Amino acid sequence: MIRTTLLAFCLGLAGPVFAQGDAAPEPASRLSRAVAETVNRQPAIPRPEQDATAAEKLAAFEARAGQKPNILIFIVDDMGYGDPGAFGGGEMIGAATPEMDALAAEGLKLTSTYSQYTCTPTRASVYTGRLPFRTGLIRPILAGDKIKVNPWEGELTVAGLLSEVGYHTLLTGKWHIGEEEGMRPHDVGFDEFYGFYKAQKEYTQDVYEMRFPDLALDADKLERYRSIGSNNDLIYGLADGTTQTIETIDSVEKMAEADVQLKDYTVKRIRELSEGDQPFYISHSFMKVHADNFAATAFKGASASKFPYRDNMVEVDSHIGEIVDVLEEVGALDNTFIFVTSDNGPQMDSWPDSGYTPFRGAKGTTWEGGVRVPGIAYWKGMIAPGRVSDGLFDLMDLFDTSLALGGVETSNLPDDRYWDGIDQTSFLLADDGESKREHVYNWLGGTLAAIRMREYKAHLHVALAQEKFLWIDMAAVVPTGLAPWLFNLYVDPKEEYPVGHRLNAWTASLGAELKAHAATFAKFPPKDLGL
Amino acid sequence: MIRTTLLAFCLGLAGPVFAQGDAAPEPASRLSRAVAETVNRQPAIPRPEQDATAAEKLAAFEARAGQKPNILIFIVDDMGYGDPGAFGGGEMIGAATPEMDALAAEGLKLTSTYSQYTCTPTRASVYTGRLPFRTGLIRPILAGDKIKVNPWEGELTVAGLLSEVGYHTLLTGKWHIGEEEGMRPHDVGFDEFYGFYKAQKEYTQDVYEMRFPDLALDADKLERYRSIGSNNDLIYGLADGTTQTIETIDSVEKMAEADVQLKDYTVKRIRELSEGDQPFYISHSFMKVHADNFAATAFKGASASKFPYRDNMVEVDSHIGEIVDVLEEVGALDNTFIFVTSDNGPQMDSWPDSGYTPFRGAKGTTWEGGVRVPGIAYWKGMIAPGRVSDGLFDLMDLFDTSLALGGVETSNLPDDRYWDGIDQTSFLLADDGESKREHVYNWLGGTLAAIRMREYKAHLHVALAQEKFLWIDMAAVVPTGLAPWLFNLYVDPKEEYPVGHRLNAWTASLGAELKAHAATFAKFPPKDLGL
Repeated sequence: MIRTTLLAFCLGLAGPVFAQGDAAPEPASRLSRAVAETVNRQPAIPRPEQDATAAEKLAAFEARAGQKPNILIFIVDDMGYGDPGAFGGGEMIGAATPEMDALAAEGLKLTSTYSQYTCTPTRASVYTGRLPFRTGLIRPILAGDKIKVNPWEGELTVAGLLSEVGYHTLLTGKWHIGEEEGMRPHDVGFDEFYGFYKAQKEYTQDVYEMRFPDLALDADKLERYRSIGSNNDLIYGLADGTTQTIETIDSVEKMAEADVQLKDYTVKRIRELSEGDQPFYISHSFMKVHADNFAATAFKGASASKFPYRDNMVEVDSHIGEIVDVLEEVGALDNTFIFVTSDNGPQMDSWPDSGYTPFRGAKGTTWEGGVRVPGIAYWKGMIAPGRVSDGLFDLMDLFDTSLALGGVETSNLPDDRYWDGIDQTSFLLADDGESKREHVYNWLGGTLAAIRMREYKAHLHVALAQEKFLWIDMAAVVPTGLAPWLFNLYVDPKEEYPVGHRLNAWTASLGAELKAHAATFAKFPPKDLGL
Repeated sequence: MIRTTLLAFCLGLAGPVFAQGDAAPEPASRLSRAVAETVNRQPAIPRPEQDATAAEKLAAFEARAGQKPNILIFIVDDMGYGDPGAFGGGEMIGAATPEMDALAAEGLKLTSTYSQYTCTPTRASVYTGRLPFRTGLIRPILAGDKIKVNPWEGELTVAGLLSEVGYHTLLTGKWHIGEEEGMRPHDVGFDEFYGFYKAQKEYTQDVYEMRFPDLALDADKLERYRSIGSNNDLIYGLADGTTQTIETIDSVEKMAEADVQLKDYTVKRIRELSEGDQPFYISHSFMKVHADNFAATAFKGASASKFPYRDNMVEVDSHIGEIVDVLEEVGALDNTFIFVTSDNGPQMDSWPDSGYTPFRGAKGTTWEGGVRVPGIAYWKGMIAPGRVSDGLFDLMDLFDTSLALGGVETSNLPDDRYWDGIDQTSFLLADDGESKREHVYNWLGGTLAAIRMREYKAHLHVALAQEKFLWIDMAAVVPTGLAPWLFNLYVDPKEEYPVGHRLNAWTASLGAELKAHAATFAKFPPKDLGL
């Protein structure tokens, strides 16, 4: 019953749950501590005291620094939850990550940070503060995709909003949310773009002869394949429309060096921007450690493991360290909020050269292995060192949190759409701050698959590995049977043993929470890009 | 072939490989960096430079402190590799471990520390420096066991050897290696014992009415069961033979408080011993977090999870912190080498109230989940803070390392038996120290099941969960088929995908390493206790 109702809502077939202009709805169940302040915003847990503490701290910062804080977000591509040492990997898996570990130790380690199940949806949610099912960006845009409408039409981005209030906004690295005019980073709010429209790894994923000789070595097939148009170029773009191709990535060697180039660019721009008086918002989005991995010359064999993925983890970690060092050198470290994360769990079909998660599943699933990612919040002097929290943090919250740091009032955002992010400034800045997020929804493409609430997770649909696709991340998605599968992640972090029948009130109530979530799509119909 | 030969060696059926008095044997394969110095000692990787550095450091310490160092070993019972925050758990699983995390951050975190597959074998190996198959202590001694010979007959213990050179040696807590006269801690080298002969958890494992009403509530069965004799008493014993029962554990409430009593005792003795001029060797062996877990009054609900196991992790962590604080208070922290570990992986048949390992398997298996345990070496001023190493460390190495710290020359130990431990002093003390251990052998009772060498692990026998015993740790043990299963733990820490066919030279060579190991049992026949 629950599932049928949910699907009906999700497909937009059900009528609106309450008319626009109604008072804020009641919470879906008594389990929820969250309070809905308006009908078009994700309910948050009220924490007025820590909000006040954080606001004071931020005001004191601004008085002291004479500026709004810089914001620097590192998104590593396909890094697993367990890859950094601070999250259980590092030396244990033959790839030490001292720089990330130091940021975690000297900042706030977030052990329940959630991405979407794959790349494009996560990046879209970070920049729009909205769930992929709302913007239509429910899966990666692949070569040959025909998109019916521009997903960016009418959307606002954190970059655009911050740019309006005086920030310089830069995306270095991977975009992967459209490459046509009107869909590029510098078309949708970034003042500046230096990077790749998509994973340039598609160069080897398409045509690498060791992987797909049938394409790479067959001239006719290759020509037809190429005609679809796959842009692996390094692009430089500005908000005024200037768009240049800096370099065409047409060899494994160039691919291998791309992140060195990207790091150099961010370093250069930080140096330059630190001379001016604009604060910056930089999304430094690594190409690595997405498959296929090839080590840059300077990092070949740099890991104890010697596998390219592991070497590339060492490289990524080194670049993070170098960029942080430059911030310190130019005197901007105190003024910069830093966040380190990944866009989804590890991609396992490139095994043995792939990432590590201690959890079940991988990229492409809504098991913890697919959506739980490392999260490190570091801000010297503003976030107390040595903090660890299991409070829920959805990467979408970076949208609201970045806007709050930049002084943009999210309450002024248009009320014709639903906003899914939560301003977590006080969680991050108050010394004893706790998360304001009560729910994380795990969407698997167009399917509402699971919900996390406190330490519980209920699945309506799960990806189950099929015997013949043992190493493939995109396992078959099946409904869970008569009742949702409920897991207690504190006693069963690997999601091995459902306990739904023993915690019946929670199982049923989490169903109600999912229904309430689905109802927001009835009121604010999602876009359909035909993906 | 390999397996048959191995079994023949292990059963003592094969002839000696080389006669006594022969020169040290060649290494088993060219893979090995280890060098055999004598026929009766585990070959170690020579690291003369770091040995010299460590020896200098230790000499400087002794000159400064005017004493040999104290040695304090914390053995938590059944704690999983992932339970401490520093090893990936902590807040993530709803049980913060700030004290252990601080010791790890300020000391050396060892990510490849190995125990035996279960309790008694590990403890026996830590105290004797010899593999359980040599001493015959190949599995826990259970109520009703008839042991043919005293396993301690002729054995030397680290406690006895250190006592001879002036240490005060104390075992607080769990023993579980015999409770008859001649087998008790204070009979075999400990100057003092304050604890339990066995897991007093057997109180509830036997007769707890929520678990086994058929025994607990049937007077006749209970009487017959009790007649086997299960000693759950808290015992005080001295090397002169004094043995007193301090308290009989006959309720869940008393069980729950036992570790508070043990902590209080260690704290009291550290205060007293710090007044004297004897260095001490203390094995503080927690009763917790062995199933069944019941929270002490002061810690009930202390964890975010609220499960008794998690509350007990918080308690154990708090006790470690309190004992370390007392060392600091009495001015002994600089003078004390501290090691924190567990006796095996988590026991999963008590699920959901059980520990966490990110690895495959659990206690009772030789998968990583059964034998890979947290390892933290801390010594203020002597071990550089912030070190992390994946170098191999077998808990047996604590035997040799403790003796080396105490000034006992292991080369003077009797040559009528085989010694399996390695002196890892220089690994631990040199700032850039590396492990001197090349091999870890994973025995499953009387079966040589697997070998770890560098990041490779080869299995000859594996425990495979059977469908109807999904949560039981003692899964069926089966041979691996035509060839050993070889895993690369750096790219496959969860041991999911054997790569033996792709790394054939390693697979075959690791077989040779196992054969060489088995041959030591032909030369130095193991004891058979009839277990």
